[in-house]
Amino acid sequence: MRISRLRFPVLLAAVSASLTLHAEQTDLRVSPPGWWAGMASPKLQLMVHGPDIAGSTVSVNDSEFVIEQVNSLDSPNYLFIDIDIADISPGDYELTFTKQGKEIYKTIYTFRPRAANSAERQGFTQKDTIYLVTPDRFANGDESNDSVAGFVDKADRQAPGGRHGGDIQGMINHLDYIASTGFTQIWSMPLLENAMDDHSYHGYAITDYYRIDPRYGSNALYRQFSQQADEKGVGVIMDMVLNHIGSNHPWMKDKPAKDWIHHNGEFSATTHRRESLHDPHGVEADQKAFSDGWFVPSMPDLNQQNPYLTNYLIQNAIWWVEYANLSGIRVDTYSYSDKAFLSQWTARLTSEYPNLNIVGEEWTTNPVITAYWQEDSYRADGYDSSLPSVMDFPLQDTLVNALKDEETWGTGLVSLYNLLAGDFIYGDPYNLVIFGDNHDMSRIYTQLDESYALWDMAMTFLLTARGIPQIYYGTEILMANPDTDDHGVIRSDFPGGWKNDSIDAFAQQGLSPKQTKAYNRIKSLLSLRKEHPVVTQGKFTHFAPAEGIYVYFRTDEAGKGAMIILNKNEAENDVQLARFEPVLKEFSTASRWGNSNKISVKNASIEVAPKSASVWLLQ
Amino acid sequence: MRISRLRFPVLLAAVSASLTLHAEQTDLRVSPPGWWAGMASPKLQLMVHGPDIAGSTVSVNDSEFVIEQVNSLDSPNYLFIDIDIADISPGDYELTFTKQGKEIYKTIYTFRPRAANSAERQGFTQKDTIYLVTPDRFANGDESNDSVAGFVDKADRQAPGGRHGGDIQGMINHLDYIASTGFTQIWSMPLLENAMDDHSYHGYAITDYYRIDPRYGSNALYRQFSQQADEKGVGVIMDMVLNHIGSNHPWMKDKPAKDWIHHNGEFSATTHRRESLHDPHGVEADQKAFSDGWFVPSMPDLNQQNPYLTNYLIQNAIWWVEYANLSGIRVDTYSYSDKAFLSQWTARLTSEYPNLNIVGEEWTTNPVITAYWQEDSYRADGYDSSLPSVMDFPLQDTLVNALKDEETWGTGLVSLYNLLAGDFIYGDPYNLVIFGDNHDMSRIYTQLDESYALWDMAMTFLLTARGIPQIYYGTEILMANPDTDDHGVIRSDFPGGWKNDSIDAFAQQGLSPKQTKAYNRIKSLLSLRKEHPVVTQGKFTHFAPAEGIYVYFRTDEAGKGAMIILNKNEAENDVQLARFEPVLKEFSTASRWGNSNKISVKNASIEVAPKSASVWLLQ
Repeated sequence: MRISRLRFPVLLAAVSASLTLHAEQTDLRVSPPGWWAGMASPKLQLMVHGPDIAGSTVSVNDSEFVIEQVNSLDSPNYLFIDIDIADISPGDYELTFTKQGKEIYKTIYTFRPRAANSAERQGFTQKDTIYLVTPDRFANGDESNDSVAGFVDKADRQAPGGRHGGDIQGMINHLDYIASTGFTQIWSMPLLENAMDDHSYHGYAITDYYRIDPRYGSNALYRQFSQQADEKGVGVIMDMVLNHIGSNHPWMKDKPAKDWIHHNGEFSATTHRRESLHDPHGVEADQKAFSDGWFVPSMPDLNQQNPYLTNYLIQNAIWWVEYANLSGIRVDTYSYSDKAFLSQWTARLTSEYPNLNIVGEEWTTNPVITAYWQEDSYRADGYDSSLPSVMDFPLQDTLVNALKDEETWGTGLVSLYNLLAGDFIYGDPYNLVIFGDNHDMSRIYTQLDESYALWDMAMTFLLTARGIPQIYYGTEILMANPDTDDHGVIRSDFPGGWKNDSIDAFAQQGLSPKQTKAYNRIKSLLSLRKEHPVVTQGKFTHFAPAEGIYVYFRTDEAGKGAMIILNKNEAENDVQLARFEPVLKEFSTASRWGNSNKISVKNASIEVAPKSASVWLLQ
Repeated sequence: MRISRLRFPVLLAAVSASLTLHAEQTDLRVSPPGWWAGMASPKLQLMVHGPDIAGSTVSVNDSEFVIEQVNSLDSPNYLFIDIDIADISPGDYELTFTKQGKEIYKTIYTFRPRAANSAERQGFTQKDTIYLVTPDRFANGDESNDSVAGFVDKADRQAPGGRHGGDIQGMINHLDYIASTGFTQIWSMPLLENAMDDHSYHGYAITDYYRIDPRYGSNALYRQFSQQADEKGVGVIMDMVLNHIGSNHPWMKDKPAKDWIHHNGEFSATTHRRESLHDPHGVEADQKAFSDGWFVPSMPDLNQQNPYLTNYLIQNAIWWVEYANLSGIRVDTYSYSDKAFLSQWTARLTSEYPNLNIVGEEWTTNPVITAYWQEDSYRADGYDSSLPSVMDFPLQDTLVNALKDEETWGTGLVSLYNLLAGDFIYGDPYNLVIFGDNHDMSRIYTQLDESYALWDMAMTFLLTARGIPQIYYGTEILMANPDTDDHGVIRSDFPGGWKNDSIDAFAQQGLSPKQTKAYNRIKSLLSLRKEHPVVTQGKFTHFAPAEGIYVYFRTDEAGKGAMIILNKNEAENDVQLARFEPVLKEFSTASRWGNSNKISVKNASIEVAPKSASVWLLQ
């Protein structure tokens, strides 16, 4: 009998071929495909998929592998095995499935030893700068996988919504570029299998939670990417999708349980009324209309209230952290999943990895809602969130308006000040991920009407303010989406990522002078962040903007400091320093980043250029 | 010697005239001018003002009156006496002031018995509807006090910023109108002496904290107004100003202490950067620039950090509650006063009167800031607020936009829903004061572009939503300020309040058909509030708006309910009731307020008129 191949490449060595063949066994699949000894949680729940496996009894050849329960749900083809793994040793365990006295399947399940310090891994922090990549559009490192047999959506570089051929090998090839520019984390849009008919390049319609899409590479290559990034001091953040699957996911043809997909597997749109989730005056029906509704017909909405699905998704996330040595997770459409599930998912992740960072996407410009989802924020309803970080969409929106709006008493830079003054609502404002744009909105350069000066101010702000900055690939060369907000154009190909590209931005070849200036500015700011930890970790202190000028500081207990001056005026300005004495009194000199001349902070004023952002190191 | 006249009319009987005259005594003044036995606080601090009184020793003819300390500050003309009144009995106490062995002053200080249940008085609640009056512009009940000798600002009814002659007698004369229309509380703009050169009609530039302006009446008349209002079931809310005085206040010529007025008594403008007060990233200097700055040169900013001024303001507020039998306090420019003082002021008021209601004005459209000031809201900085209620400016702003904006997925009525869904940030959203306009902004009818339909929706919402509604005088007859936002025009004379007015709105004579309709609508809604307590006190539950229709409910544990339907569509609509089953399942029938026909809530739909607000009573 032939043992089914587990889709866990490094575990295949243990598979034996000496047993009697069994017709259905080629389809047997166990999820997760292997696990580790020594995890914090003593429990593991295996989902076994195989024709007619429901109702089997399961036996194992070793008493360390303690089967506590075996359950079937509505489908005849799934079996769930609850195991106690508190005392499990690394090694292979043979599982035998018996039905009506007949062995119908055998398989080997392997526990590996954990990597050293796996549990204590440090997630991304304020020290980091995250580079967000759309992998299909960044670099094509392996043309052989642009199209793959069995996958309908083939490469078509001319189509904005088509696959352009970028892949993991492309990211590996340009790790040096990413690291030498100064980024320390890569968040790529999802790489898991999206066996969809079209638009599969974006990655948010997952059809296999345990498989890297072969058009991007393989599980092993992803793991290699992470290892090589780590060697260059760059962490990898995985983009996870808990809310929905792609409509071509096998679950849509054979649901493990009737309630696996919301609305019985039929499309019914979400209301997008996220406010219902914390509304003290609302009804559960409005919450369900938000949470249970689907985004689009091609993305069936998962019912995470099913406890087997809960376990599946939690274990899947842990599996990837452990397997690919992740430094963090970005969770897509965070609040759209079931609320109780979300706290369970996040709490179990953080109990396995107390220092892992996880950032949830919650697209709202209302900071009250953003704060609601962060751990340690106040929630009148007693909701228990374990989410360390949230995407700071309110700051994104406010930053753009602050830079574009006229400077008046109530508009312009003061709106940025006002927003940050409201930070008291957050559990930890320093751990929010801040950004000027992302893959779902116009490029920041476009949002700022292609004003280089405003772009410079935005970048300087993002790379010196409180929070963990995230920069979308290509921002460093002023990539834009003029006259359209088509997602396919926003996510354009990075010049140099494809053979024969006339411009190679990776080598700064063929860039316009303005693009080169932009790249050098980003590189300089990232270098500032690395050389001067006070800029990334110091206490943030700001002063109410006045006359078009906003001044804030980062200071630490070691006596280091940085002063950042945003000047929105069209003219040079003499910034009088006296007002900043509450902070400056601890320092004697200031030198502008990029210029070694020191001036005394007891001086009356500092001259700043028109429409500029400048960073002054204090000593 | 003649004893100085205490400015406390009811206490004068005790004054004796048998003692030796003393030159300076005519100027002697004690604040507060009398007190009560049996107050919760065992302490009282008298401010005694008299030429050269500093440095006196004080003796008293009764051991129940325990003088603990006597202090002078910087002025030679003030003395502060700390008394322990824990065991004081009602009666007169003779105080003797001696300096260098010579008696320089004598005075009688009187403690009165408290009215029954004074401490337990019930402040305004959700059951109430507040009528906000600009007393100078409501009704002229006593023409003899329109101008008063010694007061520069004389009556000038033609000047928008001049005094028009309205007064307390005018309010007394129309208590029947107010009560019969259905209002249960009157908040009048300040009535205390404003001996200013111009614009004294608004009342916010106080020149005597213990004296009703004689152009409005007298302390005794104010007390009588409150008594007569109470007899008609109407409470009186006093508008108190803690932040600043009028520039003609005697303190400006003779400050008790050098630090009595911010910026040494010289004008320096506030930044109005209220965000600085809760900013976790801010500096104290920005807080002081907000709190210590003045509004305008005519309103010197008090330094409530001076502990003698702290006591003065606290005792003054208690004095008026006790003297005039107040049901509540509205505090002007609440956050502009010193933060620590504010919690002390409010806590001492509420410790004397646990059920008194106090509403602070905090003009911001950011609900996070509004919530910050309410007691029991979460404050990350540990600030201790005792303020029971805050003016809900965010709701005012949102209501107007919700009614005027086009109905789209993200605009229109949904903005009202979104705002209320954020109520979880409040200590008690039901105790916020909600309003469509007030004396400082355009009339609601003007804000709604004089659309009667939108006005009707606004009024229906305000009188049925969570919170304590406040209606500005004249709103019930559609008073407007077309083509201007001049405060003097916003605060126009109420028709019928002046002799020979061609229209008498108090008697509904001369009103246009639309004005009559408006008045009857308000009266009907106020009657609804009285007849159906569920509308004012029931649990508020709402459903996310859809297709231009917003439906919410008030329900109580006694099985009563009300359903309110706001329809912004230009056409009649059949509202399908099935969606509201989570609330409607507790009821069987609905009847529209104003129509006794009952329909079954199991019916498929209810027809509502175009652009309408309707209230349905549920049983």
